[in-house]
Amino acid sequence: MNGLPKKTTGTSTNFFSSDFKLGILGGGQLGKMLLQETRKFDIQTRVLDPSEEAPCKVGSDYFEVGDLMDYQTVMEFGRKADVLTIEIENVNLDALAALEDEGIKVYPPTKSLGIIQNKATQKLFYTDHEIPTAPYSRYAYTSEIADSIRNGGQEFPFVWKSARFGYDGQGVKIVRNEADLKSLPNVECIAEELIPFKNELAVIVARSASGEISSYPVVEMEFHPEANQVEYVICPARIAPEVEKKAREVALRVSEAIGQVGLLAVELFQTEEDEILVNEVAPRPHNSGHFSIEGSFTNQFEQHLRAVLGFPLGNTDSKLAGVMVNLVGEEGYQGPVVYENIEKILAMKGVTPHIYGKRLTRPFRKMGHVTVVNHDLSTAREIAEEVKQKIRVISKEK
Amino acid sequence: MNGLPKKTTGTSTNFFSSDFKLGILGGGQLGKMLLQETRKFDIQTRVLDPSEEAPCKVGSDYFEVGDLMDYQTVMEFGRKADVLTIEIENVNLDALAALEDEGIKVYPPTKSLGIIQNKATQKLFYTDHEIPTAPYSRYAYTSEIADSIRNGGQEFPFVWKSARFGYDGQGVKIVRNEADLKSLPNVECIAEELIPFKNELAVIVARSASGEISSYPVVEMEFHPEANQVEYVICPARIAPEVEKKAREVALRVSEAIGQVGLLAVELFQTEEDEILVNEVAPRPHNSGHFSIEGSFTNQFEQHLRAVLGFPLGNTDSKLAGVMVNLVGEEGYQGPVVYENIEKILAMKGVTPHIYGKRLTRPFRKMGHVTVVNHDLSTAREIAEEVKQKIRVISKEK
Repeated sequence: MNGLPKKTTGTSTNFFSSDFKLGILGGGQLGKMLLQETRKFDIQTRVLDPSEEAPCKVGSDYFEVGDLMDYQTVMEFGRKADVLTIEIENVNLDALAALEDEGIKVYPPTKSLGIIQNKATQKLFYTDHEIPTAPYSRYAYTSEIADSIRNGGQEFPFVWKSARFGYDGQGVKIVRNEADLKSLPNVECIAEELIPFKNELAVIVARSASGEISSYPVVEMEFHPEANQVEYVICPARIAPEVEKKAREVALRVSEAIGQVGLLAVELFQTEEDEILVNEVAPRPHNSGHFSIEGSFTNQFEQHLRAVLGFPLGNTDSKLAGVMVNLVGEEGYQGPVVYENIEKILAMKGVTPHIYGKRLTRPFRKMGHVTVVNHDLSTAREIAEEVKQKIRVISKEK
Repeated sequence: MNGLPKKTTGTSTNFFSSDFKLGILGGGQLGKMLLQETRKFDIQTRVLDPSEEAPCKVGSDYFEVGDLMDYQTVMEFGRKADVLTIEIENVNLDALAALEDEGIKVYPPTKSLGIIQNKATQKLFYTDHEIPTAPYSRYAYTSEIADSIRNGGQEFPFVWKSARFGYDGQGVKIVRNEADLKSLPNVECIAEELIPFKNELAVIVARSASGEISSYPVVEMEFHPEANQVEYVICPARIAPEVEKKAREVALRVSEAIGQVGLLAVELFQTEEDEILVNEVAPRPHNSGHFSIEGSFTNQFEQHLRAVLGFPLGNTDSKLAGVMVNLVGEEGYQGPVVYENIEKILAMKGVTPHIYGKRLTRPFRKMGHVTVVNHDLSTAREIAEEVKQKIRVISKEK
């Protein structure tokens, strides 16, 4: 007030309506939803994505087309950002490490991302840090599994996971016999014990550069009774309080051990004996946290932003119960997308469709999601079922 | 499913991830918050605003700089839209009427907007339609008020309102004496009886092209005890159920009578005798509805979009209680904005700042707002007071 320039915020940078720039590697739907939060706070963004038609093209301050795995592209892009974050794991790690050396803040840190990017390294990290996870064996090539079976080491059935570039269920397969095994690509992989579990759970953890850490309530993936496909993500999970507590503790432990900055989505198994095992993690906003946009005091995207910019973390409590349904392209349809019956689901209470902004549908492509919130969880769950029965992601012509 | 092209939605247009374009006249903060919803649904937008630095520049699919009052500019812009809406009332009405004649859907309809744009016409409309409002006199020029006072017609005190281009409290003044009167511009105006009121209330009404209509809970404007300035917008208003009912009924009646399509924000007085009088209306999303972004099942911007696109209206119930605080530029500061202590309010539960995206602050400029939500209204109200005490919108240098 004395006419001199003064430092006016507790943090050293003025992020809001300023020249500060957040760089985001990846311009898909997770980035798009993150941009909703940067717009709300008026924080400038630069986004890099290989596709000219990425969902983040609109809503970012600067959008660049480029290969996320190319060293030089990531270097040049990263140098124009004050803080760099990701919305997809498969980015050039060497470039991130070099950018960190140049003093750019990279969140998640390159080291954490390196542990996560390779599933074999990830598993090794869990065993090294006494984080409960399913027993597994590591193989340099899938072909080595056959040798191990012949020698009586490996046994059917098991869960095969490609070590690299697994994303959204790609690169994971339950192997029950020789034929299953032969269908797999010959790559670095792990073979995990097939654990009978009661529930698949997930916890979103946020950790900021200052070390402040916070977890969201546990969500439950409800599977289709026959199709073995996740149908609903339910918050809060319908589990005992002690299981909830244990799951959140394990998730927090992983985030701290791994030195994460930003969100960490921790997928968990609740075994028949109510043990909690870590399945895998993602160092970014995650499908299992989408309920938070309508359901939580602070949604996961705002929370990621708070964590990577060093703001205080937001409250993770729920305003009300939430159930999330994914919108994926219907089998047999390909081409310009039509959301059949969307106007019918818009008429239901507490139903919010999120359309990711992809003009073309194809079978199983992630096109959007729908959140149902209600003060009563079972009502939300019932409405979610109606939503699932009504809406279909198809194309104008089959 | 038979291989033939099929009409797949109940409405005739496919709005989502399609070539459909919503035109928006005005690119300020209301437009910016509307764009959050068009992004969520992936509906293409074109925005027209006179400023190259308007908040809507980012987040719209196409942004054009141009004069909203210029006939030719609005015509050319409007022709490129399938549906045209506004985020500010002061637009060229002749152009809108001509666009309607050409078959473009203009919501609010030109006729409704015409009634609202001129405050004298608006008042006349209320009396013609037996909508309760404060008694008033109409003057072609402010100078005529002096004549009327001399003749014993008009008496002090009264509320002077400019008939045209009143916006956000501009063009409104309480006139208590000759000196007050002399300070006013000599324009078309009304002189309204100064009504002693208990509360200033507001109701957001949504009405769609199909005639579906819905109101939000009544909000209450809480004034600073000394400064006579709105400090908090509170939802739900702390009023008796019968007053709530009457206020919503009056608001619905105005929207229907005026033939609105889209939102109508109805500002009301609750008199000492619990009468409800209409103060004035705005045919668009409104400051008094900002609580709905975090507080309601359907926020006012999504609701406006639903109404103008002909979707079913969303549920207007509250998830929890909400209190809204405006962020305006502090007196004595001008220049690049700094949100002092924003990191402190980010640490409070249920607090969400919305930063409108204006790089320069000046005294009383609307720079953002903060919403506080909580399951308990009085807790939200207390936190809002802490927010107001902490945050200041200042500049780097005074």
